[in-house]
Amino acid sequence: MTIGGELLIGASRVAGEAGEIRAVNASTGETLEPAFSLASLSQVAEACALAEAAFDVYRETVPTARAVFLETIAAEIEALGDELIERAMAETGLPRARLEGERGRTCNQLRLFAQLARSGDALDVRIDHALPDRKPLPRSDLRMRRVAIGPVAVFGASNFPLAFSVAGGDTAAALAAGCPVVVKAHSAHPGTSALVGRAMQAAVARCELPPGVFSLIFSEKEKSAALVADPRIQAVGFTGSRAGGVALMRIAQSRPQPIPVYGELSAVNPVFLLPAALDARAEALGAQFVDSLTLGAGQFCTNPGLLLAIDGPGLERFLAAAGKTLAERAAQTMLTPGICDAYRRGVDRLEHEPNVRCVARGLGSNEPNRGQAGIFTTDADSFLAQSALHEEIFGAASLVVRCRDAAQLTALARSVEGQLTATLHLNADDARDTVLARALLPTLERKAGRILVNGWPTGVEVTHAMVHGGPWPATTDGRSTSVGTAAIERFVRPVCYQDMPEQLLPEALHEGNPWGVRRLVDGRTSLSEHV
Amino acid sequence: MTIGGELLIGASRVAGEAGEIRAVNASTGETLEPAFSLASLSQVAEACALAEAAFDVYRETVPTARAVFLETIAAEIEALGDELIERAMAETGLPRARLEGERGRTCNQLRLFAQLARSGDALDVRIDHALPDRKPLPRSDLRMRRVAIGPVAVFGASNFPLAFSVAGGDTAAALAAGCPVVVKAHSAHPGTSALVGRAMQAAVARCELPPGVFSLIFSEKEKSAALVADPRIQAVGFTGSRAGGVALMRIAQSRPQPIPVYGELSAVNPVFLLPAALDARAEALGAQFVDSLTLGAGQFCTNPGLLLAIDGPGLERFLAAAGKTLAERAAQTMLTPGICDAYRRGVDRLEHEPNVRCVARGLGSNEPNRGQAGIFTTDADSFLAQSALHEEIFGAASLVVRCRDAAQLTALARSVEGQLTATLHLNADDARDTVLARALLPTLERKAGRILVNGWPTGVEVTHAMVHGGPWPATTDGRSTSVGTAAIERFVRPVCYQDMPEQLLPEALHEGNPWGVRRLVDGRTSLSEHV
Repeated sequence: MTIGGELLIGASRVAGEAGEIRAVNASTGETLEPAFSLASLSQVAEACALAEAAFDVYRETVPTARAVFLETIAAEIEALGDELIERAMAETGLPRARLEGERGRTCNQLRLFAQLARSGDALDVRIDHALPDRKPLPRSDLRMRRVAIGPVAVFGASNFPLAFSVAGGDTAAALAAGCPVVVKAHSAHPGTSALVGRAMQAAVARCELPPGVFSLIFSEKEKSAALVADPRIQAVGFTGSRAGGVALMRIAQSRPQPIPVYGELSAVNPVFLLPAALDARAEALGAQFVDSLTLGAGQFCTNPGLLLAIDGPGLERFLAAAGKTLAERAAQTMLTPGICDAYRRGVDRLEHEPNVRCVARGLGSNEPNRGQAGIFTTDADSFLAQSALHEEIFGAASLVVRCRDAAQLTALARSVEGQLTATLHLNADDARDTVLARALLPTLERKAGRILVNGWPTGVEVTHAMVHGGPWPATTDGRSTSVGTAAIERFVRPVCYQDMPEQLLPEALHEGNPWGVRRLVDGRTSLSEHV
Repeated sequence: MTIGGELLIGASRVAGEAGEIRAVNASTGETLEPAFSLASLSQVAEACALAEAAFDVYRETVPTARAVFLETIAAEIEALGDELIERAMAETGLPRARLEGERGRTCNQLRLFAQLARSGDALDVRIDHALPDRKPLPRSDLRMRRVAIGPVAVFGASNFPLAFSVAGGDTAAALAAGCPVVVKAHSAHPGTSALVGRAMQAAVARCELPPGVFSLIFSEKEKSAALVADPRIQAVGFTGSRAGGVALMRIAQSRPQPIPVYGELSAVNPVFLLPAALDARAEALGAQFVDSLTLGAGQFCTNPGLLLAIDGPGLERFLAAAGKTLAERAAQTMLTPGICDAYRRGVDRLEHEPNVRCVARGLGSNEPNRGQAGIFTTDADSFLAQSALHEEIFGAASLVVRCRDAAQLTALARSVEGQLTATLHLNADDARDTVLARALLPTLERKAGRILVNGWPTGVEVTHAMVHGGPWPATTDGRSTSVGTAAIERFVRPVCYQDMPEQLLPEALHEGNPWGVRRLVDGRTSLSEHV
């Protein structure tokens, strides 16, 4: 397939009217063809109008139709073959294996949401039958289902060009919920976005859905703001910087009708190294840590940017092992020159903070756009006093905080901001660790969406129980997740039907349960026929 | 019990340090004893600090403990006996039968949430077992539950002194979720609030819960703002005016850590009178309409403030019947002089809008604080052109809009703002009505949280399937409900536990399901043992 530089507005491919951008080869710095044209305000509005026009039909598609659509998207993405992987490699500098894995995850994600759509679980059907003989007044028949919230704007992330981008988690969840989607492609991987966009456009056509179910635009900041402000858009999904997410949130809140923004913004993902675990396996932990830190050049939302431990020989052994491992790690290509510059500035700032010491750096490089990993330490008092030490540096840099004792460690836990993850390395057979873990857990539950034991936070499974979210500022809305089937809840709202004759009721609420969905009938759950 | 004028801060009764207010007898205008003292900023902060201190213990109470607590609150409220009803009658001007009914509803609501807490359904337990042999990488064990969001601030509503006040829906849902609650009492019924607050305080003590689980303050605007801004508060429940709700939302959004505000603001609850229904029973509908319009002096969030119908003899018969019925209805005591003044000004403004005609008024009164009901008409073109005609007048005033034809009726439906309810009066055996209903329904589903057929929107059942919510500006967050068991979702957020040893896992997530809750295990639902 030739990569087109057009906007995909509904079923059309149209040249953007507001300038153009080109992708850059992340490893070499060379400019890539073709040019991608940018949407004008009227083109943004056109995508929203088409989404609105598609909404009422798409949201009432039967579960199978929606499931088949999601599965068709996955098949169309797979059919793009190696061209997709090669373009993504060029645009992001990420290695082949990582991108092939990410493609697999993206398609599995679409298929898991297809399964969810088929089950009807997200409809959350509830029926409370009438009580005609109730005194003093009879009770009406009440039936509830969740309906799609409306057209959704999705902003692709730079760091997952497939799984958090055009056909990523937000798109899959919104489509499964019944919402048309307008994707604003990330400018770091426009070619990858165009390819996936064409696959989605093909899926819409093959499934004979209204074309406005999906549009893809490239756009500058002002037009992206217009997308969020468009009255037809009813929710926003975003993964990116704290500044970017807050800006979108402010736009969304200033609309005549405010709408939710689901933004994943910023996290340092604290890892607690408990004493007995350090005693038992400091060296192994040090090496594992470096693997997690440097994965994907450290450009994961769940990168372990903060480690906390009680000072002592165990921590020294850990740092020695981590330092030795890191010193041999090659510099890695980062996603964009801008991200690389921000990373370097962040590391530079960190190094010059009072009481921060460098433990080790990875290998440097004279090539463009390469990030040199780094591990730094500080003491707990400095960490508590210096707010700059709490800030995320996007990339493979991590700060290890030395605590005097368990009390200081738990105090530090309370001082961190909201996080996507928190991790405990512990020895479950040693009371030193389990007592400390029990003291930490109530705090960690309040700080993070996911708590890991003896693992590393990089790597987010797409399952029913996954939570990729967390309290502010990890996300703009800690009540939900952006990964896993619970993500569908972002894009639905409940509607109750009172005494509605069956001929007018949505099919999902018919007495005979023609869709075979799980229901709560008069307070009792009956199971879905589909799982 | 003597009604005390103190703040209830945790287990204490303390005099407020920032002035005092007195209640007013709504029917007579006389000032009632005692004075209620107002909280200072430090007293607001103290209530929040106690809530925070109680949170970690309270949120981990076992389901039975939380259920028993909710049931104990209900029993303590009932034990207040007639004193509660008499005080509420004096403060609100609402009749005895209404308040006795509201007390029953309030206590049933607490007991329904107790049942929900016992079932564990709101924990939404999900388990995805590890896949140690998965290639290329094994999968971890992932377990999810919903945890309480944190201390919640609840603002009592003026119009439901029991069911949407101190121990009302927001409080019951938050407590069932595991959140301590700080209630800001509505100044229109401080004595009623104090009595219910004492009942709640007694329940906390009887159940041996941490005293900070509940506090009740009286406060002025500045201190109420401080309550929403307090960093320990994690969510806000509010029922009241659009201006008040928007103000709280802005405060919540401007915090360093923004928090959700669940505000129920404003609705006119459109009622569509379809042609065959009018043909068949215009007179009966007219009389029913007046009953709904004047219920509780029209001071319901779901009051039918807007009726829409196609012009013709059916509508004329309806208006004649409604007008005749209304003309004999006595003026009713309104909740407060301020509300009564606002109602009079609203009606006055409406009457002076171009192309608005009065159909009928209820009887007037020389007594203080009495609301004279009114029905007005206008034409569809005027309604579409004059935004003032879309605004809620809180009280027993309603505007009937005459449409030329079905097309104009559906256009009007699209023009209204978000609503709590939308109602269709129709004849299910007549294609004129069913065709029109089908054309209207997609719009109504997008505009309202509840759609009724052949009923009247006043009266909101507390069940599993109820939705009392709706798109902006009916509420500040259309993704949830303030009535019914689904309201608990406002006050929880998901947390995932990865590879956590059972000894550290919350009991609800233990493999053997010791709490007997409904679970989604590897994608299959297993039922709760409790329902």
